[in-house]
Amino acid sequence: MFFEGSEKKVEIVVSKSAPSLRSLGQPFWEEMVAKCNATILSSISNDKCDAYLLSESSLFVWEHHFVMLTCGTTTLVESVKTFMDKFEKEQILSVIFQRKNEYQSHLQKSSFEQDIDSLQKRMSGVAYQLGNLDTHHNYVYHLDKPYVADDNDYTYELLMYHIQGSIAQYLRSENQNAQAIRKLMNFEEILPGFEINDFVFEPFGYSMNAIKDGFYATMHITPQEDSSYVSFETNLDLANQHPHIFNNLIATLQPGNFDIISFNGIPSVETINHLLMNQVDEPLSCGYVMRFYEYLQQQTTPLRAYKLK
Amino acid sequence: MFFEGSEKKVEIVVSKSAPSLRSLGQPFWEEMVAKCNATILSSISNDKCDAYLLSESSLFVWEHHFVMLTCGTTTLVESVKTFMDKFEKEQILSVIFQRKNEYQSHLQKSSFEQDIDSLQKRMSGVAYQLGNLDTHHNYVYHLDKPYVADDNDYTYELLMYHIQGSIAQYLRSENQNAQAIRKLMNFEEILPGFEINDFVFEPFGYSMNAIKDGFYATMHITPQEDSSYVSFETNLDLANQHPHIFNNLIATLQPGNFDIISFNGIPSVETINHLLMNQVDEPLSCGYVMRFYEYLQQQTTPLRAYKLK
Repeated sequence: MFFEGSEKKVEIVVSKSAPSLRSLGQPFWEEMVAKCNATILSSISNDKCDAYLLSESSLFVWEHHFVMLTCGTTTLVESVKTFMDKFEKEQILSVIFQRKNEYQSHLQKSSFEQDIDSLQKRMSGVAYQLGNLDTHHNYVYHLDKPYVADDNDYTYELLMYHIQGSIAQYLRSENQNAQAIRKLMNFEEILPGFEINDFVFEPFGYSMNAIKDGFYATMHITPQEDSSYVSFETNLDLANQHPHIFNNLIATLQPGNFDIISFNGIPSVETINHLLMNQVDEPLSCGYVMRFYEYLQQQTTPLRAYKLK
Repeated sequence: MFFEGSEKKVEIVVSKSAPSLRSLGQPFWEEMVAKCNATILSSISNDKCDAYLLSESSLFVWEHHFVMLTCGTTTLVESVKTFMDKFEKEQILSVIFQRKNEYQSHLQKSSFEQDIDSLQKRMSGVAYQLGNLDTHHNYVYHLDKPYVADDNDYTYELLMYHIQGSIAQYLRSENQNAQAIRKLMNFEEILPGFEINDFVFEPFGYSMNAIKDGFYATMHITPQEDSSYVSFETNLDLANQHPHIFNNLIATLQPGNFDIISFNGIPSVETINHLLMNQVDEPLSCGYVMRFYEYLQQQTTPLRAYKLK
């Protein structure tokens, strides 16, 4: 029952001289999504953004930029290459490609090293590792081109490992439903006014996209005991306007460990159960300050039986 | 320059009715070692034990049991299978096969799951995971057969990650020599009276075997910046007679993080720089109590440039 929840992610910004990404239409994005072995399940739209819920995560498309996250053993790098090949070099203003460290990296179809080797044939990028190899870490590769992000351009990612408690238990149960999950996650409170599109997988697993004006939030739950992983990501200004969102999710899901990654925002959480074990705050040459905070809990874990064939 | 220091390990005990393992001679053990893609570099012997220094780690052979550790991308499971095929089932009293979590598991030739699938065709074993998947963990597979260990049968393993300080710097330098390393590691003090056999690899990297009567100690240093790893293992009674050995090594090598694994011994270290983040103490059905203690340091790490081709 192992499923790799940990995502690969790409965010690409094109210039105003490039065609509107939304105007490329669903067939274009279907091809992009197919390249990494995912499919579009459904979508919602508003004036600013099209949000696609994927068989393995999410895609958000605005006029001149998009964000795509995929998990499992998807090959997001193939989607990135396909996209790059359809645009003029000068039209691409920013590319940030991320891989979170995986539970079982040996099951992936490519390594980060292989991914960036093939990206490097199409652009001139630089790559970094945030965090130590022996614990949580994150790889990032970005186009090495100065880019000036808008003042209100923030990204916050919350990556939760080993969720615990009664809500985690519900998320592992059969016959769960989206309405109940929305309520348990307090979306009405933490994402007021957002339009929500979600999906419950069989036998469990949950994906959610939410949009409001140009803002998005997305959440993906892999509840499997021993390898649970939940990610939440948003471009809301958490530091100044919505400081309670991450605290609320951490209280709900009681993760054993969690990470926060941010671009141009300063993470802040209140937790008495976790210690900030590693912290990276670094400006990238593409114009963002990237932060990676690793919070762990002091634990006593049982011996876990490993299933034999 | 990446090298996977993290070891696979096997310890097998045969019955008194089986041939003496030492009497099988070097050609037998050369074949065993070749099966996992290593070679014997040199050996030392005393009345009780033959200690082979390998191109990738170590092998210790007593009359009726042996311990073999191999690192890099060696396939220790192949050696284990070769050994099993040469003995009667009833002659095998205990088999404990371990894999420490690797820095880069996707570079390994087989996964733990694949290893134990093939072992399970030759014996009836059980497998466990100690620690959480997202941080340090250890896999163990053992023959599911009651075994009564001697009262003084202890194993202690110290696994150190990200070594720091001036001695770590020396270990990364060129033109280092074994004599200087022995002195820096205080072997005279921590292993008094032991016969030592060691080897300095090019451009760096160090392996050491030490024996005294039936006691052994072995140390393997992979000093590479960003992926350094040092292991020390012994069957000395650390809890009661040699409590300072691990403290001494930790003070010398200043690891960012470290684990202690023990069989039938209770780990104890003094460290003000590390927090005990996870602890597993569990009896195994093969007669040993296995312990896994994970110590981490609170850190602020820089962004690490990832080398592009």
